[in-house]
Amino acid sequence: MRLSDRLLAASAMVLTLVATPAFAQDAATIARAEVIRDAALNQNIALDYVTQLTTRFGARPAGSKSEQYAAAWAAGYMRAQGFQNVRIEPFPLVGWERGEESGSIVGDHAQRLVLAALGHSPGTNGVIQAEVVQFDSLEALNAAPAGSLAGKIAYVDAGQMVRMQDGSGYGPLTRIRGAGPAAAAAKGAVAFIMRSVGSDEHRMPHTGTTRYVNGVVPLPGFALAAPDADTVSRLIGMGETVRIRLSSTAHTYATVSQNVIGDIVGGARPNEIIVLGSHMDSWDLGTGAIDDGAGGAITLAAAKAIAASGRRPARTVRVVLYGAEEVDQPTDTGNGGGAYLRGIGTAVEQHIIAGESDFGADRVYALGLPPGAQTSNFAKAAARVLYPIGVLASAEPELHGGADIAPLAEAGVPVFGLRQDGTRYFDLHHTADDTLDKIDAEQMSQNVAAWAALVWLIADSDVDFRAMRSAAAGAQGGH
Amino acid sequence: MRLSDRLLAASAMVLTLVATPAFAQDAATIARAEVIRDAALNQNIALDYVTQLTTRFGARPAGSKSEQYAAAWAAGYMRAQGFQNVRIEPFPLVGWERGEESGSIVGDHAQRLVLAALGHSPGTNGVIQAEVVQFDSLEALNAAPAGSLAGKIAYVDAGQMVRMQDGSGYGPLTRIRGAGPAAAAAKGAVAFIMRSVGSDEHRMPHTGTTRYVNGVVPLPGFALAAPDADTVSRLIGMGETVRIRLSSTAHTYATVSQNVIGDIVGGARPNEIIVLGSHMDSWDLGTGAIDDGAGGAITLAAAKAIAASGRRPARTVRVVLYGAEEVDQPTDTGNGGGAYLRGIGTAVEQHIIAGESDFGADRVYALGLPPGAQTSNFAKAAARVLYPIGVLASAEPELHGGADIAPLAEAGVPVFGLRQDGTRYFDLHHTADDTLDKIDAEQMSQNVAAWAALVWLIADSDVDFRAMRSAAAGAQGGH
Repeated sequence: MRLSDRLLAASAMVLTLVATPAFAQDAATIARAEVIRDAALNQNIALDYVTQLTTRFGARPAGSKSEQYAAAWAAGYMRAQGFQNVRIEPFPLVGWERGEESGSIVGDHAQRLVLAALGHSPGTNGVIQAEVVQFDSLEALNAAPAGSLAGKIAYVDAGQMVRMQDGSGYGPLTRIRGAGPAAAAAKGAVAFIMRSVGSDEHRMPHTGTTRYVNGVVPLPGFALAAPDADTVSRLIGMGETVRIRLSSTAHTYATVSQNVIGDIVGGARPNEIIVLGSHMDSWDLGTGAIDDGAGGAITLAAAKAIAASGRRPARTVRVVLYGAEEVDQPTDTGNGGGAYLRGIGTAVEQHIIAGESDFGADRVYALGLPPGAQTSNFAKAAARVLYPIGVLASAEPELHGGADIAPLAEAGVPVFGLRQDGTRYFDLHHTADDTLDKIDAEQMSQNVAAWAALVWLIADSDVDFRAMRSAAAGAQGGH
Repeated sequence: MRLSDRLLAASAMVLTLVATPAFAQDAATIARAEVIRDAALNQNIALDYVTQLTTRFGARPAGSKSEQYAAAWAAGYMRAQGFQNVRIEPFPLVGWERGEESGSIVGDHAQRLVLAALGHSPGTNGVIQAEVVQFDSLEALNAAPAGSLAGKIAYVDAGQMVRMQDGSGYGPLTRIRGAGPAAAAAKGAVAFIMRSVGSDEHRMPHTGTTRYVNGVVPLPGFALAAPDADTVSRLIGMGETVRIRLSSTAHTYATVSQNVIGDIVGGARPNEIIVLGSHMDSWDLGTGAIDDGAGGAITLAAAKAIAASGRRPARTVRVVLYGAEEVDQPTDTGNGGGAYLRGIGTAVEQHIIAGESDFGADRVYALGLPPGAQTSNFAKAAARVLYPIGVLASAEPELHGGADIAPLAEAGVPVFGLRQDGTRYFDLHHTADDTLDKIDAEQMSQNVAAWAALVWLIADSDVDFRAMRSAAAGAQGGH
């Protein structure tokens, strides 16, 4: 069904469902949210932005020239779209470059393997060639006898990731990606290989960060494309000894990344800030269309839709295109979310809510509000405005928001989530296949409409999520 | 619908459609064809063969060690399955190795491109870096003024291949692949790039042979993955000058390939030969599962199903696993089909019909018989046996059969075709993604059932396709 048809069909339904409660929200604010929603659904700048970003700059690894050029271009784009106070805020970063890499089975079953080094993995310092020992889980690897992998390559094939609307198949497998190299090193292994964390069956390895231990990744780590993992696992299942040859010139280097920030300055209460955002950097294999050019496109286009609506909101709407989200290391590297929090200092108190779009460009299906807001009049107004475009109110409060706004959330800023359908997200995520053609423009416009309408409702009101959260915590404490 | 359900549903229908004509075919032969068909549908060796072939040997480029090892293994497999007169017949070949290759946009829009050298393309002898000139067709490239591409890279983006059941979207674009390098060289270009000939939207370039002119491919030629072709074409559409850097160490070398041949020797008329086949070699990027491990699997499994049926056919059923099909050059390189024809000499007269399976492993939807056989009693018997598994009789006679049996066809051997659904074939064809997991085992079994039943009908009869063809030609001549 086209969204415009859905809109007509659902409108009648909502009138029945919501009846006519007394909204604390100003009726004109709600009516204007509907107008902004429908205008954004039909026309917005999201596709233009993400098309230019991905076409002009391709992959934008954190700290790369490409990320830096893209940031300068995006600042110009924001200015041209009428954003105010547009600025680029640099911060230091330990970058990572893949360099050249290859992998193959050697010996009787010699064949090329399609694989990719895990982010922040060290290089192989020449060539590693060794026998593979297979495990079906991180737990099995951890349970291997001490020293039993001396001179071997540890290989974990925990099976294919399960496709889920909410992406919940991802978490269990990223544990392997994060902890695998250290676990393998602890048993004496010379390298670590895992089946890619992904739900596709293409010859497309999924990269992603693996974790530092005392400031370094202890072993070269690689993700094997699913069909190649199948091959290795089948050969071992046939009783064959599998020897693999690996080479990688991956390395870290000192560089800078940056956040790009721009405002739609509020009229009545400009010092109350709603901060939207997404990350500008991408993994190096694809062009970062769904992860996360789309998120910048959606949030920029939503703010622009509000600015273009003909009425200035009371509060300031800020868009931050964060640098270096994919880095995600606990120790000696920065990321844009942390840098933003440090940059705003005590102004964090002026941040009334934060939201992040970082799960592709497929449709939003649920709204998560901060704790205490689920049954508020604001939630009723939001449901009224979002239901017609297919967004349900979630009973599950939003606590973390995402990697870029997690520092804000930890500093006490309430967060919301417009939750996206991630069913096909992990077919593409962190692969070479993350390219513009994978974006469904109609679904991306639904995202823009949802963001624009919701943010307008917050921006053109005095809704206080901190107070609602405190009241809810107080009520809970009183039980 | 599962094929077994389809079989039950269709059986009733066929009784109605076909009623009870008087078949010239022996009724017991037809009844046994139905038994062989149903047994093959439920159990056959196709999946085992193609699993072992692709897992043990990976890619099998023509003339490579991998192709040679796979041929030796396949001969052993045929012997173990009870084939007789199993033999390996080598022939000389000009092989081609891809070596290392890379491509990227340089300058303001620097980014990596995913591409693959076209088969038999020469290397770049270092690095080629030049401005790109875009054309939307081979005709437009041919119409460029003489010398106008001096020092430039010719780039043809004729749009995405159209998916068709019969694969007919392929032909128009392979003309570009074959003739592009020579056309570019004629205008002074230093390299040739084209949008991949494929119907997918993955970052998977499709390789394939480009044509020799006077014994060499005149320029390095490359296929760009569809999303990368989109990027280059969009940048040019934005008015940007695109400069591309190419490197390739591709080269040819003298080697040998081989045909693997095995027979199910007939009882009453062993010197009448039905030759089935497919090619053993594959392109180097994938593991040659759908192109064409599956074809060997289907034809071997069909012959085995006949051998295992408990009754020896009158005629000999031969399976040939041809070497070096993908090479396909008109001049100084061999291929398995030509080598087979040379090898049989005057025994070509004993070949009563030839068939080839080389279009993946998806279901067979139509049977094409040689000219003159379309309204024969044999065709009626075949329709009766094949319709229940979803195969229609085609009015279109089969003339060429496929690349491997084209030399036999040109030498006068009648050919048949069990035409496969190629809707998704060109998503995978000649890419790294041609791997075992892309085979649908149930559809492959339908192929085996169709081949086994049809070949049994021919093998257990005295049907004479040469005579039918002559009679038809005579009748036509008489008009």
